[in-house]
Amino acid sequence: MSSSLYFTATLFLLFISATLTGQDLRVEPPNWWTGMQDSSLQLLIHATDLGSTELRVSGEGVELLATHTADSPNYLFADLIVRPGAPAGEVSLNFFRDGQSVMTHAYRIMDRVRPAADVKGFDASDVIYLITPDRFANGDPENDVVAELRETTIDREKGFARHGGDLRGITDQLDYLDDMGFTAIWPSPVLENNMPQYSYHGYAITDYYAVDPRFGTLTDYKALADAARDRGIKLIMDQVVNHCGSGHWWMDDLPFDNWINYQGDPQITNHRRTTHQDPNAARVDAERMTGGWFVSSMPDLNQRNPFMAAYLIQNSLWWIETLGLGGVRQDTYPYPDPGFLADWTCRIMMEYPNFAIVGEEWSINPAVVAYWQRGKQNANGYTSCLPSVMDFPLQQALIEALTEEESWDQGLIKLYEALANDLVYSEPRNLMVFGENHDMDRLTTQLGGKVDRIKMALTYLLTIRGIPQLYYGSEVLLQNDAFPGDHGVIRTDMPGGWAGDPVSAFTGQGLTTDQREVQEYLRTLLNWRKTMPVIATGKTLHFAPENGTYVYGRYDADQRVLMVLNKSAEAVTLDSQRYGELIGPATRAVSIGGDAQPIAEGLSVPARSAAVFVLE
Amino acid sequence: MSSSLYFTATLFLLFISATLTGQDLRVEPPNWWTGMQDSSLQLLIHATDLGSTELRVSGEGVELLATHTADSPNYLFADLIVRPGAPAGEVSLNFFRDGQSVMTHAYRIMDRVRPAADVKGFDASDVIYLITPDRFANGDPENDVVAELRETTIDREKGFARHGGDLRGITDQLDYLDDMGFTAIWPSPVLENNMPQYSYHGYAITDYYAVDPRFGTLTDYKALADAARDRGIKLIMDQVVNHCGSGHWWMDDLPFDNWINYQGDPQITNHRRTTHQDPNAARVDAERMTGGWFVSSMPDLNQRNPFMAAYLIQNSLWWIETLGLGGVRQDTYPYPDPGFLADWTCRIMMEYPNFAIVGEEWSINPAVVAYWQRGKQNANGYTSCLPSVMDFPLQQALIEALTEEESWDQGLIKLYEALANDLVYSEPRNLMVFGENHDMDRLTTQLGGKVDRIKMALTYLLTIRGIPQLYYGSEVLLQNDAFPGDHGVIRTDMPGGWAGDPVSAFTGQGLTTDQREVQEYLRTLLNWRKTMPVIATGKTLHFAPENGTYVYGRYDADQRVLMVLNKSAEAVTLDSQRYGELIGPATRAVSIGGDAQPIAEGLSVPARSAAVFVLE
Repeated sequence: MSSSLYFTATLFLLFISATLTGQDLRVEPPNWWTGMQDSSLQLLIHATDLGSTELRVSGEGVELLATHTADSPNYLFADLIVRPGAPAGEVSLNFFRDGQSVMTHAYRIMDRVRPAADVKGFDASDVIYLITPDRFANGDPENDVVAELRETTIDREKGFARHGGDLRGITDQLDYLDDMGFTAIWPSPVLENNMPQYSYHGYAITDYYAVDPRFGTLTDYKALADAARDRGIKLIMDQVVNHCGSGHWWMDDLPFDNWINYQGDPQITNHRRTTHQDPNAARVDAERMTGGWFVSSMPDLNQRNPFMAAYLIQNSLWWIETLGLGGVRQDTYPYPDPGFLADWTCRIMMEYPNFAIVGEEWSINPAVVAYWQRGKQNANGYTSCLPSVMDFPLQQALIEALTEEESWDQGLIKLYEALANDLVYSEPRNLMVFGENHDMDRLTTQLGGKVDRIKMALTYLLTIRGIPQLYYGSEVLLQNDAFPGDHGVIRTDMPGGWAGDPVSAFTGQGLTTDQREVQEYLRTLLNWRKTMPVIATGKTLHFAPENGTYVYGRYDADQRVLMVLNKSAEAVTLDSQRYGELIGPATRAVSIGGDAQPIAEGLSVPARSAAVFVLE
Repeated sequence: MSSSLYFTATLFLLFISATLTGQDLRVEPPNWWTGMQDSSLQLLIHATDLGSTELRVSGEGVELLATHTADSPNYLFADLIVRPGAPAGEVSLNFFRDGQSVMTHAYRIMDRVRPAADVKGFDASDVIYLITPDRFANGDPENDVVAELRETTIDREKGFARHGGDLRGITDQLDYLDDMGFTAIWPSPVLENNMPQYSYHGYAITDYYAVDPRFGTLTDYKALADAARDRGIKLIMDQVVNHCGSGHWWMDDLPFDNWINYQGDPQITNHRRTTHQDPNAARVDAERMTGGWFVSSMPDLNQRNPFMAAYLIQNSLWWIETLGLGGVRQDTYPYPDPGFLADWTCRIMMEYPNFAIVGEEWSINPAVVAYWQRGKQNANGYTSCLPSVMDFPLQQALIEALTEEESWDQGLIKLYEALANDLVYSEPRNLMVFGENHDMDRLTTQLGGKVDRIKMALTYLLTIRGIPQLYYGSEVLLQNDAFPGDHGVIRTDMPGGWAGDPVSAFTGQGLTTDQREVQEYLRTLLNWRKTMPVIATGKTLHFAPENGTYVYGRYDADQRVLMVLNKSAEAVTLDSQRYGELIGPATRAVSIGGDAQPIAEGLSVPARSAAVFVLE
């Protein structure tokens, strides 16, 4: 029964028996659950002249505490309590004017599908595959163009246009991803982006409760979540609380005068993210940072409005509960109000204690990145419940390490010194590590197209502490060499994702030797990684680079693994004495392929290669 | 009486009545004081076959607790207690062999000259003038060459040779420094460097209790300290506990097998300073970092040997007490044993609660620099009592800020973001700020010789939080343009420091217009700074740079100062609204020259200039 109710809700049905003819009644969240940790629920209700009605609520275990009108006459906010033990079922929302019932709405309270503790987020045992859904695979050509939406054209030749990829396309390729060894997927946002152009990227959300029809339906989203879960793959949702798209439905009728920052007089953010941490920062800059708009087409949500805050928090909970998510990625993390972020993360982590959230703080300053992570003791007292941040500093160091000529302070030493900055993080193992994402040049491009460097980067990302994130298609060397920094080219189509593609990363058809080699290398590494819990939970030990070679290891009471990045043009033989702290009592080093070397004779590693040795 | 005793001691006399004929008896420290916070004293005593003697001590209030022999037969270490209230006077050290007295030594216990709390260290109210004594002024040509020492030549044409500058030369120019407005001087080390070459720089100490005769005598050093103190100028001593010079007297007869790190098998340090902080660092790298030698001519002292630790700590206390120092600068701070550094700093700060010590951690990573400062809460639990560290990250940012073309992430934004890193420091006001030192290119050279940039840099250094340090001669634009990185040229002779110099920074003779302009600008700024306690103790507020202009301020309950660095080629008029948080209730802005502007009309600042406004 709870399961059938669940599916009913996911169909997003609103049971409206309206006597206000022609009303477009919105009630958000569109449903809720009994048995949440926090029994409070605040509904945003929108319909013409709704503010002048009186709401009465009837339903077992559900109680109306208060209603609030807004600056617009068309909103009512209703504070409900869903008492512990309240049964699932319909709650009647009855709107009266002058003592007359003018409208009723059957609001669905549902049983939860699974215990909250089973909603498990990604961690360092996972490897995340980042997908730009419009560019990955077109599973349903029928939904490529949706006439009702503002951007109706599709053109695979144009980087800024929609290409037709969708949720079903991702679902179709889960077997490929599972076979490769990925255990989590992070599609960039798939909610409605009813914008006139550039809508493919998904970060200009125009309805926080609607899947963009060009990506599919809520049913498709749910099918992806279930199919992924069946394979042990976690689905991460890319959420955006900082801003919406200018085509958002509420932009035509904002509930409050302060629903949007700089409402009526938009100002662009100064992007000065250090204003959060900087004890010397001027208030005017801090205000412009979080209040300013990211771009002019994305109104900046004012999370200091408590109705907005409740709306966004409930929206996140709704998606986690509806899809059984395996994590949330929060966009432009330092741009919303920091107090709100603390509330938002803590509410989610209270509800789902084993969940995961990663925030995007694009700074190469570890002190700035570390500031946001749960458990960090900040000088200004700021704390939140954010488990994970993205390790942008390490990303930059990795690229510099592999591309710079070795010298006293260039090359691998950059990676060594970047890892030393683990000193500032509350939990380095919860950092997301990556070589690229959808906003920067392809890894292949960053590394000058050199397969040896790409293998070193992949080896590093999959063996260092943290939660690795790769980007779709880099396993087959997608690149943007000719168009550095061009997002449309960076987010190029995955070969094989469209019917008739002459090359397919999924089947291997038409791949070059280099592409096959890297894809196979990655597949082997990913699947090996699953057998090595020490990579996820072990300690890290590294040695100062010497002669173009960097040696580091992961270890715990049961396992020891030694990695070598050898950038030099010569094969190296490692002095086992120097690495004795890592080697411990081991006598043999077994490579992933199974070849074993006696350690005492010195481990040999070919020129320009990465090596992984399990020490026994 | 205490005063005459004091002077006696500074004459460094050893009252030896030896019966071991021909003995070169060393007792170090050469004297001590009654009334120290810690009443313990450990003497290092050296003479042939001394280890086989029995020491008896007689003196009122002084007690021998224990003696220790060493690995060399020629040492004895004696643990004494100088009881609180012990009178000043001579203590007899009597050495017996086979029951026969073979030698006696009259050891001097002295009254302290001043209360320990009056030994006041530099702070942010001071401005420090860094001097390379060999290159500043030759006050006594008689001591230029000292035949008994290994490097006997002097050649002002050679950067690596001695040039003849000395302590008396500094003393002679104190009036100039006082008139300029400096309140502290930091001469690089002046202790004996009896090395065959490169001895001018002073960092290869060969006797921790002897002034290098080419710089003068202990009396000269004391005269400098007193003359400086008379003018309110603090004398900072540059101390080196990490290493000695290979010509140190004890290198011929090391007391212990572990007196020196890698004793008998010298290894050069790997300079991997992050091994201190890095939770992932290998022990072998950490050991090589602190144990390895800085260079092959500088044996690395093993401060983990408790006799060495006591020796170095007492040596520092001895110089502070003997000279009445105004601070200590500790060389190559992260290279000695960190546990020792904690003991060393805490012992000094316990003895002299108002003292100051600054450590040289040459890293541009604020997390690494901040690690060493008193009050910093480190993840690994490390703490020490070091009040001050050098702000190398801000130094680099300042140069980049003033020399880079302005862009989104270049130019002044570097300085803004560097200051944001105050978030990691326990006390930013105790950071030493500087644009150059004796180990890097001259400020003039770093700034491309542009007077406008130099004025901006000086303005910044003298108004931002922290303790400013300038380098001798930069007030008259000394530069090393033709020889970047060449220490000998960087440490060029101060014009006017040698008899017959055609140009003199001290008298102004022969200076160019630019030189006079910068010198006068600095003099004005330095003397103005003395009248503005807000610069030393106030809070800092800064605004994100816009249009090539950076505005920041210092404020407290009594004073508000607004600074502008305008790099742009246009004059700017500041929008007083934007800077309202700093301006507060003020209505007038008074420049240092006394000109006043009404704030409401917008403060105007000429192109390519720095401005300082006192807000009233």
